[in-house]
Amino acid sequence: MKAEILTIGDEILIGQITNTNSVWIAQQLNLAGIKVAHMASVGDEKEVIVNAFNDAARRADFVFITGGLGPTKDDITKNIFADYFNAELVLDEAVLTTIDSYFTKRGRVLTEMNKKQALVPKGCEVIPNNNGTAPGMWMKKNGVVFISMPGVPYEMMAMMSESILPKIISENKLPHIYHKTILTQGIGESGIAELVETWEDALIHKNIKLAYLPQPGFVRLRLSSYGEDAAELKHNIDAEIEKVKPLIEKFIFGYETYGEEPPSLEKIVSELLREQKQTLALAESCTGGYISSLFTAIPGASEIFKGAVVPYTNKSKQTLLEVDEALFETVGSVSKQVVEQLASHVLKKFNSDYAISISGIAGPSGGTAEKPVGTVWIAVASKEKVLAVKFQFGDNRHRNIVMTANAAMNLLRKFILKEV
Amino acid sequence: MKAEILTIGDEILIGQITNTNSVWIAQQLNLAGIKVAHMASVGDEKEVIVNAFNDAARRADFVFITGGLGPTKDDITKNIFADYFNAELVLDEAVLTTIDSYFTKRGRVLTEMNKKQALVPKGCEVIPNNNGTAPGMWMKKNGVVFISMPGVPYEMMAMMSESILPKIISENKLPHIYHKTILTQGIGESGIAELVETWEDALIHKNIKLAYLPQPGFVRLRLSSYGEDAAELKHNIDAEIEKVKPLIEKFIFGYETYGEEPPSLEKIVSELLREQKQTLALAESCTGGYISSLFTAIPGASEIFKGAVVPYTNKSKQTLLEVDEALFETVGSVSKQVVEQLASHVLKKFNSDYAISISGIAGPSGGTAEKPVGTVWIAVASKEKVLAVKFQFGDNRHRNIVMTANAAMNLLRKFILKEV
Repeated sequence: MKAEILTIGDEILIGQITNTNSVWIAQQLNLAGIKVAHMASVGDEKEVIVNAFNDAARRADFVFITGGLGPTKDDITKNIFADYFNAELVLDEAVLTTIDSYFTKRGRVLTEMNKKQALVPKGCEVIPNNNGTAPGMWMKKNGVVFISMPGVPYEMMAMMSESILPKIISENKLPHIYHKTILTQGIGESGIAELVETWEDALIHKNIKLAYLPQPGFVRLRLSSYGEDAAELKHNIDAEIEKVKPLIEKFIFGYETYGEEPPSLEKIVSELLREQKQTLALAESCTGGYISSLFTAIPGASEIFKGAVVPYTNKSKQTLLEVDEALFETVGSVSKQVVEQLASHVLKKFNSDYAISISGIAGPSGGTAEKPVGTVWIAVASKEKVLAVKFQFGDNRHRNIVMTANAAMNLLRKFILKEV
Repeated sequence: MKAEILTIGDEILIGQITNTNSVWIAQQLNLAGIKVAHMASVGDEKEVIVNAFNDAARRADFVFITGGLGPTKDDITKNIFADYFNAELVLDEAVLTTIDSYFTKRGRVLTEMNKKQALVPKGCEVIPNNNGTAPGMWMKKNGVVFISMPGVPYEMMAMMSESILPKIISENKLPHIYHKTILTQGIGESGIAELVETWEDALIHKNIKLAYLPQPGFVRLRLSSYGEDAAELKHNIDAEIEKVKPLIEKFIFGYETYGEEPPSLEKIVSELLREQKQTLALAESCTGGYISSLFTAIPGASEIFKGAVVPYTNKSKQTLLEVDEALFETVGSVSKQVVEQLASHVLKKFNSDYAISISGIAGPSGGTAEKPVGTVWIAVASKEKVLAVKFQFGDNRHRNIVMTANAAMNLLRKFILKEV
């Protein structure tokens, strides 16, 4: 059972909107066990839309179409849809009643233009739109089902969830799909690939697909499998994860199960602190408040987060966090000693249970032969202990900040769990 | 001149990532005067990729491909690309040198797997990747140019901006295009639409397209025109901007001209401070370091930015920034008096010329009848003066933080310019 998603609209092709409809439909179809084989976006032009219909019919069993169903002149999908099925447009009384009550409820007068929205191709199955005036349409040709929906996301989403997916699921025997993703930090994708090579080569015989998904600061490793038996898929993937775990254990910081909210490092650390009823304070020099902004973006942050100091100058490191002035002369501000003092002192200032401190050279300027751009010292502290680690990142300022944040949060995670 | 954008990767088809590459490429091509006729996304499978290449070649003059160039086994685009052009893969010494220095700089060892990244199809024009190890590739077949780029957004973006777009623009006669964008803060898109309605209706006769580009905290108004005469386009758009300016003047904080780096509020404020050789310090409570992270994201931030305190608890507002304890009982921490003290005291602590302070209720919890979620007090201070203003935003935590940041930075901009 293969699906194609076709999104129609000039606004997509000029990059004025991000195509969130395709992502959402793809997620829903995958969760239902329907494989998306192709996505396409075309403009509001008859010829390209007809070509896209023909191409999709060759590739897919189900074609999900959004866009071009509004009442204005630039909305041409419905006429093309009717032509494609050689069906004339006929007035659907049930749709007209719905549209009429939609307008009455809002105290607006139904115009001729709005009435046209009740026209549908003869023989089509109407998908009710409970959130707008353009009905959805379901038609079949040569065994391929075409489903046309409005482009307004919440109208389309309600149609999919309330009518279309339940219909497809009840009428078809769909395979099950299972994805699980391993979250790693502190190693690049090629580093992981080498560590897991033998294991990865064997996956092909197990109907499991592996994907590397790198992001600045971490890499996600996704295992996917399709089949008839949901329990078996889960069992097989979980078994493979148990096998690969020892090979990359020290880089794993969490797992993402498909359909659940993906965990970020800041969420994982916040959750750990919340469970232990403990708190955090930060002293961020080169990351400039970025880590603080990540923790405070999470609702309820005040339960675990006491605050931060961003001592961007040497002077403020002294006056706000009492770093020994002499250190700036002897070892410099990007040093083990300075981050150790920053972490211990910010912990005391905020009376928190844990602290992170950062001092580094984000770039593009400020590097030296001894401490090139990308050199970062990170310290984590509790009331009992301070641990400082040196990292060497690259020369892109933005990436250095993001990578430092991820490294620092993962270091704290391990520190809390006594893994370092 | 028509373009097609082809994004490759199972992660797109299963809805694991939002396809931001397509949007960004589409924007850049449109700005350069190249029409995007089609977008497609396919999975990591040889047959579908080859079909997508063939389909694209029928529709477009330029095919922009992202994804599948990494060093791991799931990355298959390069081999398919080479096959498509009947070209063998050969080692590119220049690429190997780049990769080698990339690894050396990071203190990592170059593996056999990484070396493979230096293989490119014979006869291809290599597009340097200054931010990663996978080179871009430019090849032509039957008059159609295929450009293959990595899927990692910042690697792809740098290649497009630094090499690919300049090459296409210099080698082709593209229509002239002129865009100018008005940046506004403090009003929504429908508010602007009402103020400029008559002016907007007249634009249609002037070959000028208007687009509203709302973002959390500000709205961009883009005027675009295409034609043969570059000077005339600029003259016409500039004239329209002069006409609309008086209608929305108090909301305008800047302009964005195509081809120039778009100015954000943090850049505009940083530039103002730099010109006056003055400095800034922040006391951020509900924005949690977000504003600090915006200023420090800009290279050279240390010239104008002295640092920040994120006093997330009442206690830390007292201990770090000496806010009168009594105020928390009498007027509460989200109040004029507290932000005034925070701004004045953080200015003194860091010995800066200007300061911003923030205290508010970002949500989702913490609101009361008197101070609902979205209530935010912002103060700006110089050595002579403090000004506090109350804002009421909405109930979405993330949006409240972003809107507060923009409001605060625009307030400081006006304060520096003595407009408030």
